[in-house]
Amino acid sequence: MTSSASNRTVSYEALHEFTKAAFLSTGLSETDGTTGADALATTDAWGVFTHGTKCLAGYLRRLQLGGLRPRGVPRVAAEGGAWALVDGDSALGQVTSVFAMQTAIAKARQQGVAYVGVRNSCHFGAAGYYTWLAAREGFIGISMANDIPSVAAPGARGAIAGSNPISSAVPAGRYRPMLLDMSTATVAGGKVYAARMRGEPIPNTWLVGADGKPTTDPTGYPQVGALQPAAGHKGYGLSLLCETLSGILTGAAVTWQVGTWMWDDGKQSTNHGAAFIVIDTNAIMPAAQFAARMEALIDEIHAAPLAEGATQLRVPGEMEWEHHTRAMTHGISLPEDVVASLRKAAEMTGVAPEWLQ
Amino acid sequence: MTSSASNRTVSYEALHEFTKAAFLSTGLSETDGTTGADALATTDAWGVFTHGTKCLAGYLRRLQLGGLRPRGVPRVAAEGGAWALVDGDSALGQVTSVFAMQTAIAKARQQGVAYVGVRNSCHFGAAGYYTWLAAREGFIGISMANDIPSVAAPGARGAIAGSNPISSAVPAGRYRPMLLDMSTATVAGGKVYAARMRGEPIPNTWLVGADGKPTTDPTGYPQVGALQPAAGHKGYGLSLLCETLSGILTGAAVTWQVGTWMWDDGKQSTNHGAAFIVIDTNAIMPAAQFAARMEALIDEIHAAPLAEGATQLRVPGEMEWEHHTRAMTHGISLPEDVVASLRKAAEMTGVAPEWLQ
Repeated sequence: MTSSASNRTVSYEALHEFTKAAFLSTGLSETDGTTGADALATTDAWGVFTHGTKCLAGYLRRLQLGGLRPRGVPRVAAEGGAWALVDGDSALGQVTSVFAMQTAIAKARQQGVAYVGVRNSCHFGAAGYYTWLAAREGFIGISMANDIPSVAAPGARGAIAGSNPISSAVPAGRYRPMLLDMSTATVAGGKVYAARMRGEPIPNTWLVGADGKPTTDPTGYPQVGALQPAAGHKGYGLSLLCETLSGILTGAAVTWQVGTWMWDDGKQSTNHGAAFIVIDTNAIMPAAQFAARMEALIDEIHAAPLAEGATQLRVPGEMEWEHHTRAMTHGISLPEDVVASLRKAAEMTGVAPEWLQ
Repeated sequence: MTSSASNRTVSYEALHEFTKAAFLSTGLSETDGTTGADALATTDAWGVFTHGTKCLAGYLRRLQLGGLRPRGVPRVAAEGGAWALVDGDSALGQVTSVFAMQTAIAKARQQGVAYVGVRNSCHFGAAGYYTWLAAREGFIGISMANDIPSVAAPGARGAIAGSNPISSAVPAGRYRPMLLDMSTATVAGGKVYAARMRGEPIPNTWLVGADGKPTTDPTGYPQVGALQPAAGHKGYGLSLLCETLSGILTGAAVTWQVGTWMWDDGKQSTNHGAAFIVIDTNAIMPAAQFAARMEALIDEIHAAPLAEGATQLRVPGEMEWEHHTRAMTHGISLPEDVVASLRKAAEMTGVAPEWLQ
């Protein structure tokens, strides 16, 4: 996430404009193109480059080939007092997920709490984008999703479930929302792959090899081996909770039924599932009291004694907000792999801004 | 959890009877005594001996000294469509938590989903006991709680938050509920303490020392050092989500305000918080369909290839259910430390069953 000679700095606005134009070129509506660009550019502004505009080219491919429907319209397929199921109609995952989160916020405004499950969606990018949408309106947001298996279970030889992410965001008074966004795998597969490319060994907590045992050898990944779940049975258990709320209960695809959004022919729906839970803090506790209690918690953490060598104690999301502040002032310094992916997106769409030349 | 010469095998019924009688001796009602005994004996039947009747003597001490109120009556202090806040009135944590989970189930039956937060509670034992109450009635249950800090954050020298547990339970058709019950610390403090007692080093992922850096030296714990969060920033983030939903939003004590239920003078309320979320699967998907989808997931996991040396691939909670089945048939083999604690409970109450002599 640091600048280098090959990084390219671009303003949030320029990155957003390009992303939106690329989406529109495939037939997305003005509104949906904006929604998609909001999500991807914000994610880059947080410095979460694995889930921002780096994914744009992959989404465009599906939009052009039909696996994602440019004019898909997510709708509430079933609902009750404090819940709804959303059918994504194979629209862009971000469009469906924003619709679902907005539905959950509206329900929570009525009932205090809501669960909204999603089917017929696709890769939704950063789970934290949706929980932030809730937190900035004063709600506690929780989001999760399933994905094609890439992570082993304790005792398994190969992948059992996806790297199923979980996010939570909590409004925090004068502070930016406390924002957790984690995968239930130990590390992102991309880190293993990068070590392989560099010819370096990896810590033995990242991967299991062909025999299902921990290995320091990334050779052959991702064809050989599976990621280890975060904290062993804990990450595995949380992953299956994601699978349940995102996949089982929604009617979405489950484990190996989930389509790969990057490596297939691009013509079919991946049928990813997702789940959103929202709690209306204002219904439960006066806003000023909740804010004061969150501020006190954060102040306490900021004032706590540091480990030797540590320079700062942060609450979840604080690093991303620091990155965001710098990005909105000085521009987003895009890593080389993101720039390469954006160039591909430009080629695919004919939308080629000057800053990308 | 294996038998040894010093273990003592007792039937579930006998253990329940003793536990209940001990509670009643302090003034608990018949109903509340049964509730407490249900929770503790079931937890032992699962083989989760750290959170079962081993805790009884500690609870009895507080009940006798007034920090827990034997005739405390938890009540709904505030509520809305799909949420409630429960004030525990310093009743036994298990009594308050069962009441809160029942309230959440009733709300979810109406609205599909519910959140119930708890304040003025105490240590609630195994988080999984409450989610199981939901799952056995066909609901997905989630529970969590806060506790006095014992776990460091990445970069912290000492403890920042409690080992704040999270549990989820999902009904699973012909299988027992899929049951996750995890602390957000890497390991239980008891494991570090046991290594200290044995004079053995510990893995460097368990503890940070006085300088806040990972250490293999358990000497001095728990006075010196703090547990490491599970999977670093992930466990830390989940722990603060527990703190938010259990402590901040409920008006309960937060971090260092939470009383220690074991080491104080026993006369004050600890004001632990807890949170329960329930989703009514039957409202969202036909019961048979949900059951079939869960069974298919579990069948798939059971059939997955095993790692070299592994003999079985389990879903979360499966080991506990195997233990439970054996316990209900052959009795519960109580470890030595549990027996010692029960003897203390017998001394404190004058309730002394023959099997404990």
